This record gives sequence, structure tokens and C-alpha cells, in this order.
Amino acid sequence: MTTTPAAAQEQVRAAHSAFLSSRTESVEARSRWLVAISEDLDVHAEELVDLAVKETHLDEGRLGGELRRTVFQLKLLAQEVRHGEHLGATIDHEDPAWGMGPRPDIRRMNVPLGVVGVFGASNFPFAFSVMGGDTASALAAGCAVVHKIHEGHPLLGRRTAEVVADALSRAGAPPGLFSVVTGRAAAEALVDDPLVKAIGFTGSTTVGRALFDRAAGRPEPIPFFGELGSVNPVFVTRQAWQRRRDTILAGLAASFTVGMGQFCTKPGVVFVPESDDDAVAKALRTEIDGRPPATMLTPRLRQAFAQSVEAMADTDGVHVLVVGDDAEAPRPTVFKTTVETVGQTPEILAQEMFGPATLVVEYERMEQLIEIASGMQGQLTTSVHAEPGEDLDELLLVLAEKSGRIVLNNWPTGVTVTHAQNHGGPYPATTAPGTTSVGTAAIARFMRSVAYQSFDAALLPQALRDENPWGIRRRVDGVCQPLQQA
Amino acid sequence: MTTTPAAAQEQVRAAHSAFLSSRTESVEARSRWLVAISEDLDVHAEELVDLAVKETHLDEGRLGGELRRTVFQLKLLAQEVRHGEHLGATIDHEDPAWGMGPRPDIRRMNVPLGVVGVFGASNFPFAFSVMGGDTASALAAGCAVVHKIHEGHPLLGRRTAEVVADALSRAGAPPGLFSVVTGRAAAEALVDDPLVKAIGFTGSTTVGRALFDRAAGRPEPIPFFGELGSVNPVFVTRQAWQRRRDTILAGLAASFTVGMGQFCTKPGVVFVPESDDDAVAKALRTEIDGRPPATMLTPRLRQAFAQSVEAMADTDGVHVLVVGDDAEAPRPTVFKTTVETVGQTPEILAQEMFGPATLVVEYERMEQLIEIASGMQGQLTTSVHAEPGEDLDELLLVLAEKSGRIVLNNWPTGVTVTHAQNHGGPYPATTAPGTTSVGTAAIARFMRSVAYQSFDAALLPQALRDENPWGIRRRVDGVCQPLQQA
Repeated sequence: MTTTPAAAQEQVRAAHSAFLSSRTESVEARSRWLVAISEDLDVHAEELVDLAVKETHLDEGRLGGELRRTVFQLKLLAQEVRHGEHLGATIDHEDPAWGMGPRPDIRRMNVPLGVVGVFGASNFPFAFSVMGGDTASALAAGCAVVHKIHEGHPLLGRRTAEVVADALSRAGAPPGLFSVVTGRAAAEALVDDPLVKAIGFTGSTTVGRALFDRAAGRPEPIPFFGELGSVNPVFVTRQAWQRRRDTILAGLAASFTVGMGQFCTKPGVVFVPESDDDAVAKALRTEIDGRPPATMLTPRLRQAFAQSVEAMADTDGVHVLVVGDDAEAPRPTVFKTTVETVGQTPEILAQEMFGPATLVVEYERMEQLIEIASGMQGQLTTSVHAEPGEDLDELLLVLAEKSGRIVLNNWPTGVTVTHAQNHGGPYPATTAPGTTSVGTAAIARFMRSVAYQSFDAALLPQALRDENPWGIRRRVDGVCQPLQQA
Repeated sequence: MTTTPAAAQEQVRAAHSAFLSSRTESVEARSRWLVAISEDLDVHAEELVDLAVKETHLDEGRLGGELRRTVFQLKLLAQEVRHGEHLGATIDHEDPAWGMGPRPDIRRMNVPLGVVGVFGASNFPFAFSVMGGDTASALAAGCAVVHKIHEGHPLLGRRTAEVVADALSRAGAPPGLFSVVTGRAAAEALVDDPLVKAIGFTGSTTVGRALFDRAAGRPEPIPFFGELGSVNPVFVTRQAWQRRRDTILAGLAASFTVGMGQFCTKPGVVFVPESDDDAVAKALRTEIDGRPPATMLTPRLRQAFAQSVEAMADTDGVHVLVVGDDAEAPRPTVFKTTVETVGQTPEILAQEMFGPATLVVEYERMEQLIEIASGMQGQLTTSVHAEPGEDLDELLLVLAEKSGRIVLNNWPTGVTVTHAQNHGGPYPATTAPGTTSVGTAAIARFMRSVAYQSFDAALLPQALRDENPWGIRRRVDGVCQPLQQA
């Protein structure tokens, strides 16, 4: 049952009303709403994971972990909201001696954008779906959310939405603050609706770019926070390769096959020093063979994966190192090529194979890595495997320019939810390079600032009153004050 | 002499090299560069103001003040950079007991986007031009800047650029970090250049939107920070009107005619309770007549102003309250209409008359103001004139949704440069509602975050090392630490 555009518009209007009626809620109230959702998801964990197993073919252990992560994320965001960190409250008192001329009293805080449309991803049915990072951070910001359920897990999507709506209602949030739609027509209606003020999206570069263009082309363009494609290159130095080649290959095999390679952070290209194909293949196969393949998330993803693998196999200068297949539960494939081929065919590095496949690239000199990295497009992550004392300065500078997160001697597929996390990067990793979709900093995407000039104390929002009734952390006359909560 | 597209591309390449070679500079070095520019602008103040008077027809007093403001802005940004506030340094140490599962050591900081293209405005030849807020905050972020000089003050633009380039060179900044181009073809080449990673723009909605579309339509879309149009509505309550009508009208006359009304924050629509046209006109004329008109910034602006005034005069239900003209130095015009007319012809509120003209709108009830405000588009500022104790809650909530800054019992045309300033707002006030182009928060536009996971101490950027070698303020394990500088 798909949502009609008219029904989607009705939900947006209801969401807008809920947004309006909740504008003056305290940080404590909003924090409680997030905790309530978190608790109810936890209570229904077994039922939700069961549904997710049926619809996504991912294994129960992984899905249980993902739900715990989602529950934790809501609690961490609730704490951040309670501390008022996301409000960025800044107070500059009147100052007749201010350097450019007398300064009036001026105070700034962040306010929510309004109604946000969120597009769930298929590959993380909890963490990047109905109540994933985008929805959670938009609600934390004080926005209302209309979420477009991914067609890969419709029953789980509906059921999660019921649990969330019940939790919000029980906690006293206004009705309509969160709702879901299904189907493409409703999705497009969301992006077009004048009352929708931002979009959160996780998915393919093709679909993401089309929606980005749609959002940018509106009479009132709106921010589109899209996380699109990334091949997440890994760079292995000669020393690291010499000292722990098989450990690195075991780590690679685990990382590119976890969740059947259906991770936006899957290491899709690995640069290693020249080496014996047979030995590398053998080490990879040993690990890969111990991991039984599973059915992919959706038939469409399986088809797209098969096509991307075929395209890679057809590329001049690329050969197969570990033979996989395109069965319903495909066995992983590893390709091999040289840095010269990548130099001549740079589009190889833009070719995301979303599924259990990766490409090993042989290189000779560090300068080649720096040159290739300098020319590559934006990435969610890059990784380096190196030994202590190696000179990585130039490489790391280039990687900082190109990626949202750099991982040292580890694999990019784990994404912790924390204050310092950054899940973003230059295009096409995201459509908004200054933002993250994971961690507490994700809230900022859905807010904008308002300054209040020369206001009477009684008319100021709570967050900006001198007495600091919410006890939040603020910056006052340029100096950051500590948190004043118990 | 206009810049060819090829020459502009060459400058972008030089800027990119300068950006690359300055990536590891300390906050102290960058801070010094900004101070050096500030000092040299101050040294050349007389010469620069003379040039500005000749090219812009603005008066010497105003231009001198604007240059002082520009000099101060650079110093304030230098201090912010020295404190490392813009880096947003955040450290989360490894934590095996982290709620969602063991947390690796992860640290995040902001890094500059790269080369930024900046389009200067004609109306503030210092504060929003060559070395205005966009250039200053992009350099503060660590970006390189190629600035497109506004055709309204080419000689001042060139001379300012020379002073800036000399200052940067003397302070040890890499050559090419800042340069200027002129002409439309070079401007378009800037927006299209793959090495340009963001655009800062202040100007008209028409030109701004065309450039925004161009930036969004690139193979790699880039953020476009445009400050476009705003009519800056003012709302006068019945009590305020009754107690100090003539004071308010005197303030209005001064505010909408300052700089010949060529301010992005000019109050272009003023809602007042029903009142006697003759008395209002008389009070306005008294003030207006004491202010001799001056030539407008450019012939093109004068023509556009004349057209917008004519269009307003031709609108059904609008009549002239104070008769102006369209001479080379036009006398100010004040229009009058009713809230009903605005309700029936809402496009009146989207019709910016860039020059000395404003529209007085008569209303009866507060509910009408709330309804009109709820329907209006984004504004840089809104203002309210009210008496203590009046119930403004609902109106202020609506204004917070619609504007970047709300001014109480004062006028929006002064924009102080401070930590709490917010010069932004929903479209079309800006094309990036989450950002400000004035104040220390303006730096954030030109940065993005990078997270470093599981890094050896020796490989971390200085800003993220445990010992905090720069003494900057950071957030560590969720807790904001104080600044550690002397």
C-alpha cells in the first residue's frame, strides 16, 4: 500500500502543525521524547529484529547489534539535547567600547528548520532507516519528520513507525511530529512540498543526485543532506605489508564481506605493494571461505551488484583474483589491477560495487599513492595500514582533503556513534561536505541560527536569558561557560 | 581590463597551490596573516576611502566607519582563529565500556574546504567587498580566495587587493592565497572550476539564484553561500505607535535612507496601526528633507530602483505617501497600503526596492500581523517596536521562523560584528539558511570536518594531540574544556 501524494502532503501539514506547537518545548521535554522512543524500541527489540531478519536476510546477531546501536544513539542525542549543546547559545552583552563602535546586546541560538523529509536506507534497517540517525537528529533538533520507508523492509518500517509514534504519544509529543510514507510518488511530493525545509537521504549516487537536483531546483531551494557513494580506499604501506600481510588480508576479507558488503563504508579498493597473486588469493580465500554467503538485501541490489562486478571484470587491465559468483547469495569476488591501470582508467575509483567485491591495486612507490589519492573524488572514509615511524605526512594531508574519516591500522566498516564521529565527506560521499550524518554533530544539519538584538529579558527565549534557566552551556561575551546542570 | 576565463583558471590553480602549501600552518600564523591585512588596510585608510568616495558616491564619514569595521572584523576573526574556536576540536578517547560497544579513539576537527570564490557587493565597498566578511572568514578558515571585484568600484577593488596581497606577502603567507578577477566570464569560470570548493556571494536575488543554480548543477556540486534579497519587515504595535509615533517615524526615515537605502537590511515594509496619512507623511518628510540625496552606487542600480518604484506605484491599492523622484540622486519615496491589499497581493512583500523607498502598511489587529508574517518568505531581519509588557509571544515565534535576526525597538540597518551576530535567514535572504555571513560564526561556512580514528599520537594534527600544543579550546570525552592560552 503506497502513500498518495495528497496523503503525503496531508502528513506534511500535520507535521508542520506539530512543529509549530512544539517550538517552545524545553530541552528536557525534547530529551524525554528521544528517551521514550529509545526505551520502546528496546522493549520491542525481539519482534523488530525478527521482522528485520525476514525482510533483509541480514543475520540476527548483526541486526540485534544494530538495534542496540540505534537505541544508544537516541540516548546519546537525548543527553546532548538536555545539555543544550546543539543550541549553540551565544550571548554578547551591550558594549559601548566594542572595537568597531558601540555594540547592542545581541544573542544567538539555533532553532529547528521545520519539517524534514527523511529517506531511509535498505542496508541498515535500524541505524539508517525509520528511526536512524537522520530521523533521530532531526527530532533532536526540534524538527518534525516525515520518513519515506525503504521498499526493502516495508513491514519492519511500518512496525517501527508504530512503536515510535506510540512512544512519542506516551511521552506527550504532539501528534504528527513523526510519520511515515511509502512509494516514489509520495517521496517526490515530500521533496517538493513548500513546508518541507530539509531532506536527509542515504542511498545510491544516482537516486541521491536526482533528489538533490530536485531539492536545489525548488522555487525555495532546501538543504539536501545526502550520503551517496564511496569506495573507501585503503592504503597499505610496504612495511606494514611485509610485517603483517596475512593479518591485513584477513581483516580486509572480514571488512568487505560483512553484511554481504552492503556497507557504505565497505573497503572497495585496496592499494598494496607488488606481491604474489597466488599467495594473496590464498590468504583471502581462507578467510572468505569461512564466511557463508547470504541473500542480498533486495533483488534490485543484487542485480546492480552483478552489473557492477561484470563491468569491473570487463575493464582492461583488471583480472579476477578470487572468483565469486552472482548467485542469489553471491560468493565474494576480489579483483586485481595495477596502479598504472588506475592512473589510465581513473573511473575505476569511482565505480562502487555495492556488495561483496573489492579491488586490490598493486603499487610500487608511495608517490604513486599520493598522486592517485590527490586525483580521487570525495570519500566517506580512507584507511592506512602502516608501521610506527613511517613518514605518512603527505599522504595523510591528501586523505584529509578527500575524506570524512581516516582510519589507521583498522577497517572502516565500524562507525561508532560519539561526539567526535564524522560520517561525511566531499561529493559524492555526501552532497553537503560540511556535515555528518552520524554522531551528536549530526543535529546541526537541521538547525539554523536566529539572533535577538536589544531584547527585553522577558521576551527572550529561555536558552538566552541571563539567568540560564535550563543550565545549558553557552558562550558569553566570547568566553565559553561550563555546563551548569547537576 | 577584464580577466579572461583562462587567466581566472590560472589564478585558481595558484590559489590551490597556496592552499595546499599552507595546510599545516598553525593557528598563530593564520591569525598573524589576518592581523597583517588589518593593519595595512588601516595604514592605507585615507587613500582607500578617497577612492571609495569617488567610485561609490557614498559619503566619507560612512566609508571611513565601514573601513574601521572591516579592520576590526579582521582582528576579531584573528582572535577567534588564535583561540582555535573554528576548529571545533573534539576528542573521544578509546572506551571499551561505551554504550553501543567498545569505542575506538576518535578525534574530529574542521579543515578548510580549499579554494573559495567570493563575489563582492557594490553597496559595502569594504565590509562586503574585496576584504569583506566572506574573504576574511574564508581566509580565517584556512581557504585560499579568488575574489571577483564588483564593477561598481574597480579601482578601489584593485587597490585594496594590492594592499591585501602585500600584507599577506610581508606576513609570510604563500603567494596566490588571495587574488582578484574582474568581469562576468571570469566570474563564471570561478563557479565552474573543479578546484573551487565553495562560493560566497552578496547581491541580487536574480544574479544570486543564477549562480546558485550553476554551482548546484556542477558535476561536483559545491556549497553556495549567497545573501540575496530581503525586505526586512518592521512591525509597530498599537501601544508603541500611540506613545512614540513620531520618534518611530524619525527612526524609520533615517534607517531606510541611510546609504541611499542601498542596504540589504533596509526596512522596506513597515506595519503600523491605522492612522492619519497627512500626519505620518509630515513626520516622515521633516526627517527626509534634512537628509540631502546622493547619487546611487551605479547607473544600473539606479535604473533597477526606478523600475521597482514604478512597479510599486502601479500596484492596485498602493498610493504614494511621500513623493520622491528618480533623479540621479533620487529623493526618497514612501508608499502606503493596507494589510488587506498585502493579503490579496502577497508578492508586494517579495518586491525589494533597492534604494531609498519604503512601504507603510496599515493594519488593525495583531492577528493580521501574525497571519502576514506566517506567509512571508525568508528575511535577513525583522523588527518589532513595542511597549514593555505587551504579549508578543506568537509574533516573535513566527518571526524566528522567518528571519535571521530580530530587532526590538531599534532599526535593522546597523549590523554589529561579534560572536553572536547572525546575518542570514531562510531563502531568499540566503541560499544556505544554516549560515551567517557576518560575525565569527561566518568562518564555519568554509570548513568541513575530518575524523581521525585509532591514530598514533605522532600522526595526529597538532590541534588533536592530547598535550594540546596550541592551547585551543576543545571538547574532550563529551566535556568542553576551557581555553588554555595565556
